[in-house]
Amino acid sequence: MRKFKFNISMSLDGYIAGPNQTLENPLGEGGEQLHEWVFPLKSWRETHGMSGGETGANDDVLREMFADVGSYIMGRNMFGGGPGPWRDEWKGWWGDSPPYHMPVFVLTHHPRDPLSMQGGTTFFFVTDGIESALQQAKEAAGGKDILLGGGANVAQQYLAAGLIDEMDLHIVPILLGGGERLLENIGGSGPKIEPVRAIEGPGVVHLKYRIAKTT
Amino acid sequence: MRKFKFNISMSLDGYIAGPNQTLENPLGEGGEQLHEWVFPLKSWRETHGMSGGETGANDDVLREMFADVGSYIMGRNMFGGGPGPWRDEWKGWWGDSPPYHMPVFVLTHHPRDPLSMQGGTTFFFVTDGIESALQQAKEAAGGKDILLGGGANVAQQYLAAGLIDEMDLHIVPILLGGGERLLENIGGSGPKIEPVRAIEGPGVVHLKYRIAKTT
Repeated sequence: MRKFKFNISMSLDGYIAGPNQTLENPLGEGGEQLHEWVFPLKSWRETHGMSGGETGANDDVLREMFADVGSYIMGRNMFGGGPGPWRDEWKGWWGDSPPYHMPVFVLTHHPRDPLSMQGGTTFFFVTDGIESALQQAKEAAGGKDILLGGGANVAQQYLAAGLIDEMDLHIVPILLGGGERLLENIGGSGPKIEPVRAIEGPGVVHLKYRIAKTT
Repeated sequence: MRKFKFNISMSLDGYIAGPNQTLENPLGEGGEQLHEWVFPLKSWRETHGMSGGETGANDDVLREMFADVGSYIMGRNMFGGGPGPWRDEWKGWWGDSPPYHMPVFVLTHHPRDPLSMQGGTTFFFVTDGIESALQQAKEAAGGKDILLGGGANVAQQYLAAGLIDEMDLHIVPILLGGGERLLENIGGSGPKIEPVRAIEGPGVVHLKYRIAKTT
């Protein structure tokens, strides 16, 4: 069955970005350590057009994450671009050929025409909220899964609305001591969270949970 | 080699107690859910003088946790008793025969004579700080490990001082949305944290880390 999956790297103290985030450094101080486990992996290198790389538990988890995904949703900070007049020139953090190779729906308040990149990625800018973005992403996914990336704010909105089916937290053994927390502002008793599995990789533990709306 | 081990149950959003903690309800609202995985276990029942109970991954983890432990350290809130004139009558939350069966060092600002309970537990009240408590606990442990329980404040002090060797976090899949957070107020870049293992049990994931002082 088609799933709406959420996947993010989080420090042991619950942050998905470090302190003092800026437009130039959206991961904040020390936040880049959250993603270091990804870069050596074979599947990461493949989506970036490189050969070689590590296999093993981390690679399996990342490969599975993208295996049957037909579209992607992200928040405006993850896409980047800032508030200035040059924001309509911004093409994301990933160069001319982003690693998504699928339709990507960017939640923003700033309307903009779709942006087609090399390698099959097209960015669509959605200004009418999370439910509309999910609906458009489902239609674009053609029966496959939909994957949600960061940032915290967008994830919190989807979790609070009970719309996410599955959540993968990649727990990195660092303390950032400040920054952007993932699991707050969700409200009430939050969604029902059932553990699915825990997988150990070098330098990271992958915790998968099934999420259900509290009724 | 003798180790100073720390072990605590934590919600997925990082709390070891829920919101609105009181002296009568030190776990706060919803906080009792953090410990529900423990009560059915065979090894928990044994230390409380009961037979039967569940075996399996959770039981193995709990059994290992106490297997080679010679003394225990806890904060004043975990011992309980409040600030009133009756505090010298308080004998802890555990009745006449506490489940520790070893010397327990309680960090407090209130001096008090040692309190010998049934079943081998003696509470010692330490007023001169965390290093003194650890030193006394080491001497009392007779070559065995020392185990640290809650609360957050005491654990944060020991983590910040780089004195803990091993940390077991039992991650319970609930969001408490407020309360007492474990991994904050540790300061600087904190200690160096190396993953040791992840074990899945029913309703809880056990993450063990090796802790080293940042040099």
